[in-house]
Amino acid sequence: MTVELISVGTELLLGNIINTNANYLAVQCAGLGFSLYHQITVGDNEIRLYEAIKVALQRADIIILTGGLGPTTDDISKETLAKVLDRELIMDDHSKDRIMSYFHNAASSDKEMSEELYKITDNNWKQALKINGSTVVDNDNGTAPGYIVEDDNKIFILLPGPPSELIPMFEKSILPYLKKLQDKVFVTKMVKICGIGEAKAETMIIDLINNQSNPTIAPYAKNGEVHFRITASANNTDEANSLITPILKELEVRFADNIYSENEDETLEDVVVKLLKDKKLTLCTAESCTGGLLGGRIINVAGASDVYMEGYITYSNKAKIKNLNVNPNTLNTYGAVSQETAKEMAIGAANVSGASVAVAVTGIAGPGGGSKEKPVGLVYIACSLMGHINVIECNFKGNRKRVRERSVVAALDLIRRSILTYK
Amino acid sequence: MTVELISVGTELLLGNIINTNANYLAVQCAGLGFSLYHQITVGDNEIRLYEAIKVALQRADIIILTGGLGPTTDDISKETLAKVLDRELIMDDHSKDRIMSYFHNAASSDKEMSEELYKITDNNWKQALKINGSTVVDNDNGTAPGYIVEDDNKIFILLPGPPSELIPMFEKSILPYLKKLQDKVFVTKMVKICGIGEAKAETMIIDLINNQSNPTIAPYAKNGEVHFRITASANNTDEANSLITPILKELEVRFADNIYSENEDETLEDVVVKLLKDKKLTLCTAESCTGGLLGGRIINVAGASDVYMEGYITYSNKAKIKNLNVNPNTLNTYGAVSQETAKEMAIGAANVSGASVAVAVTGIAGPGGGSKEKPVGLVYIACSLMGHINVIECNFKGNRKRVRERSVVAALDLIRRSILTYK
Repeated sequence: MTVELISVGTELLLGNIINTNANYLAVQCAGLGFSLYHQITVGDNEIRLYEAIKVALQRADIIILTGGLGPTTDDISKETLAKVLDRELIMDDHSKDRIMSYFHNAASSDKEMSEELYKITDNNWKQALKINGSTVVDNDNGTAPGYIVEDDNKIFILLPGPPSELIPMFEKSILPYLKKLQDKVFVTKMVKICGIGEAKAETMIIDLINNQSNPTIAPYAKNGEVHFRITASANNTDEANSLITPILKELEVRFADNIYSENEDETLEDVVVKLLKDKKLTLCTAESCTGGLLGGRIINVAGASDVYMEGYITYSNKAKIKNLNVNPNTLNTYGAVSQETAKEMAIGAANVSGASVAVAVTGIAGPGGGSKEKPVGLVYIACSLMGHINVIECNFKGNRKRVRERSVVAALDLIRRSILTYK
Repeated sequence: MTVELISVGTELLLGNIINTNANYLAVQCAGLGFSLYHQITVGDNEIRLYEAIKVALQRADIIILTGGLGPTTDDISKETLAKVLDRELIMDDHSKDRIMSYFHNAASSDKEMSEELYKITDNNWKQALKINGSTVVDNDNGTAPGYIVEDDNKIFILLPGPPSELIPMFEKSILPYLKKLQDKVFVTKMVKICGIGEAKAETMIIDLINNQSNPTIAPYAKNGEVHFRITASANNTDEANSLITPILKELEVRFADNIYSENEDETLEDVVVKLLKDKKLTLCTAESCTGGLLGGRIINVAGASDVYMEGYITYSNKAKIKNLNVNPNTLNTYGAVSQETAKEMAIGAANVSGASVAVAVTGIAGPGGGSKEKPVGLVYIACSLMGHINVIECNFKGNRKRVRERSVVAALDLIRRSILTYK
């Protein structure tokens, strides 16, 4: 089945808010095995919305409209759809009761707000109108109900714009309704890779991508990582899994230890923290150009405190000498951005912290500070694991933010590889 | 002039990523005084993209396409537009040279990685093709160039999908180009506020917002900050400025020292680093729950090394005692998340670093670790300025990521306010 999503709201066209609903509903449709080919955003404008609905009717089975269900005259989604379908708007007593009790509760719960705010305006009753023949979907988090309208083999779903209202409504009432429409089962697996660029990773499996039908393989690049999503549809879960397994095995052979996870919800830092825990290792970070971003990412992992002992942000040479015992001669001879300094930072961090793993990052993030010999983007990362040291040199392209983000990913990956290869 | 935005990418339709580009470009169009009436998202599908471009041609003067410029066979934006315009794709030697040097740098940077990884694949040369007669726009942060194509009174702008490539390219090359198309002068001013929530900030100037016409006032909430963009259109800059000035003055009166900047490009960390420099102060950070994110944000500022001496990531109690000399009794009696511990962390950081300003953050970011007395979101921040100490208690709502981000903003704001009130 084909879905088309129409987001309604001038605030989206002005850029006042990010359309996270489109993303949320896209994920839901993919999970349901529906094909979403078009996402449309229009403002609170009747002519353009009318036209968008008309076009969607020609190419989709299910049309989801978000936003434009509020109480103001700007809100026209329901009214416009009623015109397209040539149906009347009629008063829904159930919605009327709910709006009344919503205002009653709001007024009694918030003594500080003026009662004035909770007076029900005439506009509010507009929200109790429904398209004749539609099903009203209760909104537990606001006054605008949602609607399901079935019309001549087409289905319209109208949802309120605020994500705090849309998401609970979708999960409680719309998802069960849509699931009944889908007879196939969809299973997806993720293969997450780091240490290989997007183009290279795709080239490595281009034969699989070109021959895909079921399962499908979708790549996407993410900040120094590449993720492949494999999706199979079948009559039941076992059948879907048996379609996925051979592809998964093939990717494992081709990407080998560049794969850091096959778990949708697992991040690179999750894997690093898990490896440290499994091997009963502890970690210390020493950061120059990344200035704490690496530590910040490790602490993304709830429970990182079990393995992460401490971190040093040593942006200045003085701090490198004082806190990590880097030899001033090393800094003078090779410079702060050098293999030698990175190595001494890691050794120093291991010594002062007593951690079994210490990782150090030093580089030129730009925009200034680069030279011909040491250009912006040059970063050295050293990892000491029980005295065994790996140092890598990286040359990242891009602005300060990107160089620093890539450095963090490379440092996490170096910890991961160091642990994996350590016997 | 009317703009239509076409976002291209199956990853958007599958919900793998959020379309933040649409939001960014919407803000840019609004700032330029262009009317954006339709945002369209289609997948990497030639037929649907072709159709979307054809439709956009009928209703917009400027059509911006994002994504689909990558090296893989999936990437078809340039190819499809060439078909719509009935133009050839030709090799662009300048782009070819840039791609070659990009890979050359990557290959020479990483000795440990197999050279295999950096071989230029045939796919990559696809990115050196341009639509005949188009202007190539250099990409300083990736291999995919952008393009400007003028055709029969219509303008097409093709931009790479990753925001880290799109945004710098837009600001450097596309914005100046678009500005020349606009005969009215648009002047925008920003008022950036921290320390007040979005709803409260809006309520404080709701009379101005309700009466706006020219200039307009648009609020944007951003991670613990609220930005108001004031935009005036006029025949010349002086006229526009004279429309903006009274509104600006009024906002300054109402928000007073909650305004940290009126400069579009200036971030909160920029302001903090500038204040430190101006007052000849130095900084040390001591972070528990934020785990380096605060240091990471300060080092966002190129040249922060002049004032940022060092940082300590002390997530564990042991590290707080060892590196910051926090009294173990304080931790036992009041807990790691307490006013007392925050204070001792700041004092300790000031002592061990010798910095004139030391800021410390300790809190419960969640999802675990909360209790009735100390719920998730409780964060203490202490700032020591030449021995003078401010401690604040914050209660943030939301998930781990949000609590940590809000803590960083609150810590930066506390440094700012401490310096401003210090005589």
